[in-house]
Amino acid sequence: MAKSKVNALVAQSGGPTCVINSSVCGVIAEAKKSKKIGKILAAYRGILGVLKEEIFDISKEKSSAIEQLKKTPSAALASCRYKLKSQNGAQSDFQRVIDVFKAHEIHYFFYAGGNDSMDTADKINKLAAQEGYELVCIGIPKTIDNDLAFTDHCPGYGSAAKYVATSAMEAGRDNESLSTYEQCTIIEVMGRNAGWIAAASGLAAREPQDAPHLIYMPEAKFTFEKLIADVKEVYKEFGRVFIVAGEGLKDQNGNFIAAETQGLGKDAFGNATFSGAAEVFKNIIQKELGIKVFCNKLGSQQRCSMHFASLTDVNEAFMCGKAAVKAAMAGVNGKMITLVREKDAGYKCGTGLADLKDVANGEKKVPGEFINEKGNHITNACRRYISPLIKGEAPVTIGKDGLPVYVRLAKKWEDKKLARYI
Amino acid sequence: MAKSKVNALVAQSGGPTCVINSSVCGVIAEAKKSKKIGKILAAYRGILGVLKEEIFDISKEKSSAIEQLKKTPSAALASCRYKLKSQNGAQSDFQRVIDVFKAHEIHYFFYAGGNDSMDTADKINKLAAQEGYELVCIGIPKTIDNDLAFTDHCPGYGSAAKYVATSAMEAGRDNESLSTYEQCTIIEVMGRNAGWIAAASGLAAREPQDAPHLIYMPEAKFTFEKLIADVKEVYKEFGRVFIVAGEGLKDQNGNFIAAETQGLGKDAFGNATFSGAAEVFKNIIQKELGIKVFCNKLGSQQRCSMHFASLTDVNEAFMCGKAAVKAAMAGVNGKMITLVREKDAGYKCGTGLADLKDVANGEKKVPGEFINEKGNHITNACRRYISPLIKGEAPVTIGKDGLPVYVRLAKKWEDKKLARYI
Repeated sequence: MAKSKVNALVAQSGGPTCVINSSVCGVIAEAKKSKKIGKILAAYRGILGVLKEEIFDISKEKSSAIEQLKKTPSAALASCRYKLKSQNGAQSDFQRVIDVFKAHEIHYFFYAGGNDSMDTADKINKLAAQEGYELVCIGIPKTIDNDLAFTDHCPGYGSAAKYVATSAMEAGRDNESLSTYEQCTIIEVMGRNAGWIAAASGLAAREPQDAPHLIYMPEAKFTFEKLIADVKEVYKEFGRVFIVAGEGLKDQNGNFIAAETQGLGKDAFGNATFSGAAEVFKNIIQKELGIKVFCNKLGSQQRCSMHFASLTDVNEAFMCGKAAVKAAMAGVNGKMITLVREKDAGYKCGTGLADLKDVANGEKKVPGEFINEKGNHITNACRRYISPLIKGEAPVTIGKDGLPVYVRLAKKWEDKKLARYI
Repeated sequence: MAKSKVNALVAQSGGPTCVINSSVCGVIAEAKKSKKIGKILAAYRGILGVLKEEIFDISKEKSSAIEQLKKTPSAALASCRYKLKSQNGAQSDFQRVIDVFKAHEIHYFFYAGGNDSMDTADKINKLAAQEGYELVCIGIPKTIDNDLAFTDHCPGYGSAAKYVATSAMEAGRDNESLSTYEQCTIIEVMGRNAGWIAAASGLAAREPQDAPHLIYMPEAKFTFEKLIADVKEVYKEFGRVFIVAGEGLKDQNGNFIAAETQGLGKDAFGNATFSGAAEVFKNIIQKELGIKVFCNKLGSQQRCSMHFASLTDVNEAFMCGKAAVKAAMAGVNGKMITLVREKDAGYKCGTGLADLKDVANGEKKVPGEFINEKGNHITNACRRYISPLIKGEAPVTIGKDGLPVYVRLAKKWEDKKLARYI
């Protein structure tokens, strides 16, 4: 590249996690060491912030704020689910991104997100190449859904898994305490097409009597007849039933059992949004079996419960951020950092690389060998896979008021250099 | 009493909490010191266990189990919501309780519960007096709802408050991260008639931009017109809206906005059970304002999230258990232990006594001075009241698998001495 030092941009995309800020911290830590990188810029609200030229210099944040950032959940740079348009009025969003990059001398782009974000990064990268604009795009994996291909697991998943398993364990004790009154508890968890989060709840079941007794993942064949039969069997054995249901369950006809019908039910990428699988279960179980059912819907708590996040997850997210910058410095381009589990005894995890394009088009579902024969719980192989990811408790600063202290960045904005776009 | 040593019975009732086991530990610790108490018995499933003669000797548990009990959420003795019947077939449930107490030489009854349980204890106590059976009944306050009269606050509330405030803080950051996509997040919390849990979420709002922006408690006048106006105002200011809604909200006609309609919607005491206030809000906000709304329903997690429970709460629950035994040994009868906040600078809390009958008939709602003028948030007076109750983090044992370790008691059952009753 022409200049001795050029700027880097980091951005966050899609649903937040407990550790996506830790990845940004990794980028900052490694970028500060680099002799090739000048300013470390950050886009406010992901790619939307690029389009709007809402960019700040994250290297100007206080070091205490960056230290606290690693202990702060959700996307401190703010995120979005905006899908770049090939044609947006007279211009292309992709072209606008390149224009903004040029205006701010951004030649490194580090994008933390899921497969939609990797697709975005890939397309930007290809347009830059066509135009002869020197750009290095490296993706950083992020999603509590754990559904990215080519990586052993995704930063964000371990913390969601730890929170969901703990919540199932605790609500399981509640169900056990009060089973003469409320015989059945259902927790509804996230996971559009993949049951990874539902699967994680299975770690809570150390003994047969432990919750959850039944786990329904979108990957297993589901019928309401089977649900009723399963519930009857567990109820007969324990006098209570604890169920974890993934939001993306489909019936035998391939229809979502609880697709939202009030409109506003799709995201910008056309993915259906869900609510109410637990309520659907509740109504049918109460009607068919006459037992009282209680529902918890963990909702967005699954992606932000930093107060009990996985230390392994925080550290791996940081490692991915650092690895992204290291790869860029080593001349890699158009790749996403992956997590690679070493085949040693014990658990050890390093990083690798995958093509952005491949990740964009892939989706990793819970494999058959992780689901029991009855299709209603996890196997020991699944436990062995998930268990290391939830270990250790991430440190959180607790304030004098007994609540966590989470940082907000000061955001020293860069001057805008282009005309307003959107 | 005739014998030099007689037996004591401890039992748990109603909805579990994080600290109701800590109260039992307090009873055990103090009862072991007493020269008047022989066996420390425990009823399995509250008063139901008494009727069924399902009683075990809790002093035979391993000391390590009792130590772990203090760190275990929900009711380890198991609980119930059974209402004693004056006439149950040929007999009275109350008479049966006295018969079981006689058969097991139980002359001290320590009952941890809410106002329905205090009513039960009061009635048992009066029948024993009529019959000339020497019995001492002491109630131990317990409820996450914090709605018991005559006590400054209730063991169980502080931990629920800490969890709900933290969850609101974290989901608030999630909402802030993704507000270009999901503009509104609603958390639905427990609280049948009293808004104490909803109020606790207000502690998360250290600054105006912090979640929650709007808190709806059953004590404040509510209309849907007001809701829409409130949401519009917040949305205009921050471009996002975070709402905490109590499950027991009523409309201007005094009807619950989300009373359950599928049957099984009342508990044994005739209290309505609820679900769906957040979903009702969601539908109306999406329809009226066209913004996307996301709901979390914390459900039973509110009463069992030991992994982030309040140390103050755990310690006070233990203190109440000890105080119950101390009072009994001092000749007190027919009273519930209360928590008394000393009027010093700083926070200091001791115990007092209230008549079981008075507690049974009372209900403490959130007072007007704790609710802001607009009826949609808490005041500083409310903050000052709740804040000390959530301080400190209760210790939890974390297993090698990265999840909490919660104990189950061995339950050395006492031989049954009477004919089967129910």
